[in-house]
Amino acid sequence: MLSKEILKQLIDIVGQENAITDKVDLLTYSYDSTADVPTETPDVVLAPANTAQVSEIVKIAAAHKIPIYTRGSGTNLSGGTIPLKKGIVLSMRKMNQIKQVDAENLVAIVEPGVVIQDLNNAVAPHGLIYPPDPGTVATATMGGSVAENSGGLRGLKYGVTKHYVMGMEVVLSNGDIVRVGGKTVKNVTGYDLAMLFTGSEGTLAIITEITVKLMPAPQFKKSFLAIFKTLEDAGNTVSQIVENKVIPATLEIMDNATIRTVENFAKVGLPVEAAALLLIEVDGLEEVVKRDAEVVKQVVIKNNGELKVAETEDERATLWAARRAALPALASLNNTTVLEDATVPRSQVTAMLVACQELGKKYNLTIGTFGHAGDGNLHPTILCDSKNADEMSRVHKAVDELFEIAVNMGGTLSGEHGIGMAKMKYLELEFGPTGVDLLRRVKEALDPDYILNPGKMVPLKGE
Amino acid sequence: MLSKEILKQLIDIVGQENAITDKVDLLTYSYDSTADVPTETPDVVLAPANTAQVSEIVKIAAAHKIPIYTRGSGTNLSGGTIPLKKGIVLSMRKMNQIKQVDAENLVAIVEPGVVIQDLNNAVAPHGLIYPPDPGTVATATMGGSVAENSGGLRGLKYGVTKHYVMGMEVVLSNGDIVRVGGKTVKNVTGYDLAMLFTGSEGTLAIITEITVKLMPAPQFKKSFLAIFKTLEDAGNTVSQIVENKVIPATLEIMDNATIRTVENFAKVGLPVEAAALLLIEVDGLEEVVKRDAEVVKQVVIKNNGELKVAETEDERATLWAARRAALPALASLNNTTVLEDATVPRSQVTAMLVACQELGKKYNLTIGTFGHAGDGNLHPTILCDSKNADEMSRVHKAVDELFEIAVNMGGTLSGEHGIGMAKMKYLELEFGPTGVDLLRRVKEALDPDYILNPGKMVPLKGE
Repeated sequence: MLSKEILKQLIDIVGQENAITDKVDLLTYSYDSTADVPTETPDVVLAPANTAQVSEIVKIAAAHKIPIYTRGSGTNLSGGTIPLKKGIVLSMRKMNQIKQVDAENLVAIVEPGVVIQDLNNAVAPHGLIYPPDPGTVATATMGGSVAENSGGLRGLKYGVTKHYVMGMEVVLSNGDIVRVGGKTVKNVTGYDLAMLFTGSEGTLAIITEITVKLMPAPQFKKSFLAIFKTLEDAGNTVSQIVENKVIPATLEIMDNATIRTVENFAKVGLPVEAAALLLIEVDGLEEVVKRDAEVVKQVVIKNNGELKVAETEDERATLWAARRAALPALASLNNTTVLEDATVPRSQVTAMLVACQELGKKYNLTIGTFGHAGDGNLHPTILCDSKNADEMSRVHKAVDELFEIAVNMGGTLSGEHGIGMAKMKYLELEFGPTGVDLLRRVKEALDPDYILNPGKMVPLKGE
Repeated sequence: MLSKEILKQLIDIVGQENAITDKVDLLTYSYDSTADVPTETPDVVLAPANTAQVSEIVKIAAAHKIPIYTRGSGTNLSGGTIPLKKGIVLSMRKMNQIKQVDAENLVAIVEPGVVIQDLNNAVAPHGLIYPPDPGTVATATMGGSVAENSGGLRGLKYGVTKHYVMGMEVVLSNGDIVRVGGKTVKNVTGYDLAMLFTGSEGTLAIITEITVKLMPAPQFKKSFLAIFKTLEDAGNTVSQIVENKVIPATLEIMDNATIRTVENFAKVGLPVEAAALLLIEVDGLEEVVKRDAEVVKQVVIKNNGELKVAETEDERATLWAARRAALPALASLNNTTVLEDATVPRSQVTAMLVACQELGKKYNLTIGTFGHAGDGNLHPTILCDSKNADEMSRVHKAVDELFEIAVNMGGTLSGEHGIGMAKMKYLELEFGPTGVDLLRRVKEALDPDYILNPGKMVPLKGE
């Protein structure tokens, strides 16, 4: 517990109206969107208005070694925002100004509390887009998204968040303010700290401003639904589209369990007998879209698939609504949704889909798998009951095995959800003890007292 | 000087035939392509054959705190490879295997000594390219290029080296071997150490293997020469092409001094009266190239330019040969070529071009400016005589002022050549003292004894 005196100092910085200390209200900051992880309430929630306030808060926290958990919209899927060691939750929602849309330089400057979709809305009149497109684009903040290096539906063609981060202002663990990177495409001055902070999950610094790259919006889009009788046919289609030099903007998969659940949930006319569906969108100039569409068609047919084209904007919207319904539909089946994002090279997508099905059988679990097939970034989703200890024990065994399989396929523990608390124990699988020690050395160089999001990404000091 | 015993231990690792100790031969490792920086000969040059040998060498170096300067082809332009504190030059030229071209996953795995063009030659039969295109593509190694995060002619559309680095194996300053990143487009496991090592100039770790992203080769290309009577018209054309949503693969500029010098050197028919030239290439599908070419034409005409289209492959080759002749042509004019790469937001290109001309007048210096206008990455090139102390003093004053101007325009000290020795003293201009301290903390976390490329990027311990 914070002393009354320190609490008062902290609250004075942001003003009483921007601080939460009420027990019931604090409870709502004890969890995020992650299932099956510990929860904890903070001592206080502070919503600073600007960088100077963040710096002042951090200076007090540093002096008294108070943990700081920076939080955007709480859509995190690896327990990244949970105040495990109590202390301060720093809510960035009030720092939500789009400071500049610089169309000439294809750049925008935003505060961390800006919702991703709001940035897209602001740049749209300039004919521009901010391409990273996580599933939570309408809710998640830019700060959270950069801190997690979030991915999403357009990773294959457009890359992930880090490919659009050009610079940032951060507050360090001692309260100092530093700017790194900037508006230039090319910048090799100093270590690439903007890239180090991107995806560092709030454990190295607090992001207070972000400069991002924008892109001209693609002029045409075409969406397809491809229906397959086997997982193998669907997986091979994914690989062969890319081998044929077509890089779709989006290339998503749903397995049978997901298809049935989505159809039951949303009634959009999905083929419930299919072993797998691919949802494909190509974009660009009209001629490019035409050519790419033809290649997609040929590859789908060659792999025994049935292709449906979204002929109208309504049909296109229905298709993508079905995809976006996958997680809520699955989540509605039981009280606990363990959603993973182990990621493999694209050539291993079929093998990974099959492995997920087999894990379901082996551990007698309901697993629906969907996700970003084009990136090898699948979301095996285990539907379970956190009150059923026996089932949860089987869930944990299945997840352990899943990570081993992914790493053995040349993949990674997490494609886009982050390590947070949820995957920390698996780090050595991928990095080895030397690698984990290296992560810790980086952490300690920037946050020697472990006050920034402690208990996430790297184990606590001495653990 | 190294003791005979240590020297023998080091040479035994790689074999006598892969070690250089002869004084005259060592001299050739005392400099790189950078003008106007100190030089120094190493105690020994070692050319390891594999990662295990690198690790053994580093372990001995770590035990005795011997500096290690990792070197590829020595094309560095910021003194990055010069063995300022003597010790070991680690030549990576023998580790030059392309380990894998994985066309299915659009990935290649290479050893650091592979020449960039050799990688492109190896992936071409698969219809793929490795897009980063520094001027030294036919000479420079992948290791050097990744360590410097090199840019080049395609930065505007295709980004720079870091956008293609997916993973690497490195040897740490204690000799430990670590793998980071891998073959997946999405990977958020741990801090993004692959990005931290990219552009770290050999000061944090020694790169022993690199996994890079490949891309389908563009099917069509069209090149143009645009001739302008004022710098302003040329600069405005650069901005307006991009504002019109055309992102050329290449968008290069030459000022009058450069045009005259190139024409005198290469006799390719450049218009010596022009204030500036733009060399523009658009690429992609045939229809895209057609559309983009039309936009380029309209913008050039609107800005009072004269447009010449390269109608044949020969004409195209001549155009780009002229561009690639810019540096050697300028360099032939005097004995010392001070080549800078201060970079500004694209909207500031005109202002920067004008500023370079004014610096030439103010300090009575011959400055030719060419470079990657689309990136705001210009190369003001001062042609001088290192034996003329008065002139060199004016050069240094002009360079000091140039960096101030760039940073004040929202730019950066170095777009692609690196900090090395040459620009270290300017770091505070961009980062402030807090930022420089932060760079140092990262350095010390990974290389506490400053054995990896000491005297580069961050000042020596205690300096």
